[in-house]
Amino acid sequence: MAQTPYKQLEQEWKRLHAFRGAMAVLRWDAAVMMPRGSADIRGEQLAALETEYHALVTAPKITRLLDRAQANTASLEDWQIANLREMRRQRDFAIATPVALVSRLAKAASRAEMKWLQARESGKFEEFAPCLEEVVHLVRDKAQLLGQSRNLSPYDALVDEFSPGLTSAEIDAMFKALGRRLPGLIRDVVTRQEQQPLLPITGKFTATRQRALAVEIMKAVGFPFDRGRLDESEHPFTEGVPGDVRVTTRFDLAEPFSGLLGALHETGHAMYDVGLPPEFADQPVGRDRGMALEESQSLLMEMIICRSRSFVSYLRPLLEKHFAVSGPEWSEENLYAHLTRVKRGPIRVDADELTYTLHIQLRYELENQLLEGKLAVRNLRDAWNAGMEQRLGVTPRNDVEGVLQDVHWAVGSFGYFPSYALGAVMAAQFYDALREAVPEVDRQIARGDFSGLMGWLRENVHGQGARVSAQELLKQSTGKPLSAAATLRYLETKYLDSNPVAKEPIVGSAAA
Amino acid sequence: MAQTPYKQLEQEWKRLHAFRGAMAVLRWDAAVMMPRGSADIRGEQLAALETEYHALVTAPKITRLLDRAQANTASLEDWQIANLREMRRQRDFAIATPVALVSRLAKAASRAEMKWLQARESGKFEEFAPCLEEVVHLVRDKAQLLGQSRNLSPYDALVDEFSPGLTSAEIDAMFKALGRRLPGLIRDVVTRQEQQPLLPITGKFTATRQRALAVEIMKAVGFPFDRGRLDESEHPFTEGVPGDVRVTTRFDLAEPFSGLLGALHETGHAMYDVGLPPEFADQPVGRDRGMALEESQSLLMEMIICRSRSFVSYLRPLLEKHFAVSGPEWSEENLYAHLTRVKRGPIRVDADELTYTLHIQLRYELENQLLEGKLAVRNLRDAWNAGMEQRLGVTPRNDVEGVLQDVHWAVGSFGYFPSYALGAVMAAQFYDALREAVPEVDRQIARGDFSGLMGWLRENVHGQGARVSAQELLKQSTGKPLSAAATLRYLETKYLDSNPVAKEPIVGSAAA
Repeated sequence: MAQTPYKQLEQEWKRLHAFRGAMAVLRWDAAVMMPRGSADIRGEQLAALETEYHALVTAPKITRLLDRAQANTASLEDWQIANLREMRRQRDFAIATPVALVSRLAKAASRAEMKWLQARESGKFEEFAPCLEEVVHLVRDKAQLLGQSRNLSPYDALVDEFSPGLTSAEIDAMFKALGRRLPGLIRDVVTRQEQQPLLPITGKFTATRQRALAVEIMKAVGFPFDRGRLDESEHPFTEGVPGDVRVTTRFDLAEPFSGLLGALHETGHAMYDVGLPPEFADQPVGRDRGMALEESQSLLMEMIICRSRSFVSYLRPLLEKHFAVSGPEWSEENLYAHLTRVKRGPIRVDADELTYTLHIQLRYELENQLLEGKLAVRNLRDAWNAGMEQRLGVTPRNDVEGVLQDVHWAVGSFGYFPSYALGAVMAAQFYDALREAVPEVDRQIARGDFSGLMGWLRENVHGQGARVSAQELLKQSTGKPLSAAATLRYLETKYLDSNPVAKEPIVGSAAA
Repeated sequence: MAQTPYKQLEQEWKRLHAFRGAMAVLRWDAAVMMPRGSADIRGEQLAALETEYHALVTAPKITRLLDRAQANTASLEDWQIANLREMRRQRDFAIATPVALVSRLAKAASRAEMKWLQARESGKFEEFAPCLEEVVHLVRDKAQLLGQSRNLSPYDALVDEFSPGLTSAEIDAMFKALGRRLPGLIRDVVTRQEQQPLLPITGKFTATRQRALAVEIMKAVGFPFDRGRLDESEHPFTEGVPGDVRVTTRFDLAEPFSGLLGALHETGHAMYDVGLPPEFADQPVGRDRGMALEESQSLLMEMIICRSRSFVSYLRPLLEKHFAVSGPEWSEENLYAHLTRVKRGPIRVDADELTYTLHIQLRYELENQLLEGKLAVRNLRDAWNAGMEQRLGVTPRNDVEGVLQDVHWAVGSFGYFPSYALGAVMAAQFYDALREAVPEVDRQIARGDFSGLMGWLRENVHGQGARVSAQELLKQSTGKPLSAAATLRYLETKYLDSNPVAKEPIVGSAAA
């Protein structure tokens, strides 16, 4: 019996999924394993696969099958209809971007990523700038074409590719709401925390021990090491497909937190991927619902869970075990104070919950200006440093902790950064709903049991794949539309209502 | 101006080369990095790429272009004509094997490789046997189809795919010539060496230090670490394309030689790949001239160079430096005695120069029987053990040092093993010619200078790519046809004429 058009499409996408997985391994390898001198060759390989992928998605056969399947959706289930919608979406995006552009962008991004790595060694943005310039030009072309085809502004078309359905209007509204309250909140919290000195945490924390700690916690969270890896790279990331998920982090030998939080941020992504509906593993509807939702999962883990009192009680004995440390600076109170310390610093991935979105807003504005041609790449460092000064009151001491800190623009990911801020906002909304549905979740986490957390996320987020839009998913799982209100409420409660250092009243100082 | 058919073909093969490179990375990753549970997914990925590669090579457009280019070779240079011949060869092979078979074999091989790794842990051949059975069936189908198309016996068609132009007749003649002299020679050498006791070399040799030693020597040989890597894997191998060559080895912590020799065997392969003609880097004629020639390069390095007196004088101070060792057991004489010790053992990759080809002959006979259906996979272990007993007088203590020791059959590489014996024979021929052309080569190697060796090889072997047949290349560079005579002469001189232990007459024992 001949297969239905829908079933034939599923077969086609099974093959596309295999291509996508192959490209993921090649990208992971480029960032983690590949010798530096092989970047050109890898660029050719990725470009060849991208080109072929593009040709397969845009083949006339696909359009014919899509039209025929669309004409007969009565026999399909909801998930299948959503799958068809996602297939068409992918095809539309591919048709809108000519293959020559796809191939040139893949090669330019491959070169730029390698140059970015080299520039981080020499510390010179100007070495990286020409490659970035090339990427910006190509992304600008792509944004124009996508925008025309999707009837969106060029920038919104890029956002839409990463986070389907989300727009600059929503992003602007979010930054506006946050901007009304955050700067004052940061001031208040910094003033308050200045009164509460930290006991410094110092020592030498070997990569081997930090790795062992991260692995133990990742296992507790449920990361499947038989189908995934943890490695080190210049910039933490998650790559791969469910069934072979690879996360990376970067260990700072002078302190034990940034490497761990990096690994757990990525574990948030990985758990999303691992929890996607297995029956649609090789289909578009079985994929994550965009990068804003992806970042909601990583930031929920890194910012909310890992910086909670309950996580700290789970973490404390593990730190003692892995680093053979003890003393008052390793108390729960002092650890919690470190993890919730608000500090205006230059580095996004080291930022606390309060200043994090300011980093994103800067990037959002700069990438808009770059794409609109209002800012030249050669002036990007100055614009970056001025923006950091204005927004956070800090000036990066060098390009590595400044404009060279993120890989995103090098690899052509313009329109990605807003996902982090949107994700942070969504994360707070999920956390609200989760604590209502699973009241014991904090007590569970305090004993290293992440089943309540992951169970709720799997049912309400991960397992939904790309069935509905991010906004719809949020409404269904939390009962509320996208809004910064939950984030602000959460931050105010956590950072102002409670006393983050002392659990007990400090005897003798009450009258001071 | 429209491109000529030949130039269009070059473009097509540039793309195919990128696919081939991508598949190489996926295979390397599967053996070195991939989590075990991801084998199925990797199998799908490799099968998808293989299928696409096959579709691209067999497209009617390629045939048309080949015919048009063939009709107008007057405007082409020799190398281009040879390139055209190699293109057609690849197309003919692809046309002869239907895509469904290619895809099934890729998946079965991926499963079998993972099962082989698992079986090596449990030590049970029977766990691996069902997967191997599936591979054998598919390879048998492939051999039949290839044989019909190439007008060769099924087995010869497989040999021809690995080592173009070489046949069972040549292999049989070689084994016959070796068989007339080798068993007696081994007996004589073993008897002689029994009179010359070795000082045992013991200790704990960490992987880190072994690695550092291997890297230092590989650098001296010329391995480009900016475009290549050294890693560890269950079975040493070389993978990749020139510009991103990856070799692996396996370190035995109880002794410093096997890991080093494994790495240098693979470095022999790598240097061949690195020395291929760069102007044809992404073209068929720019590839190696088959596996027999590949193995001639690895075995020349591992067996002849690394087990020579001059290499030992270079190696001795390096061993002292890297392992902080000293004493009479680390003398040049004792090291040389270790490296030239002839011992009938169960493991091919640990075998000495004299017994090595006996290991190959066993595999050659067994794989012929498997493919002809004269030997069932379920009886393979017994046949293996009986063959080892009969040929080498040893019985493997378990399957890991027996029938599970090689990965080749798991990944479908039937017809590959003869390349090792052919390679060993060619290596001795090259060595003869090389020493005549570069008389100072031994003195150079003694001081860690491999330029004379590599210079000659690059000019006479590596840089020739696939321009002429292996037999023709041998004749051009050595003046002689393929023959086991040089090997036997080399072995007899090295192992019987000289006194391998004492350089000076041993005072007082002369009359004993």
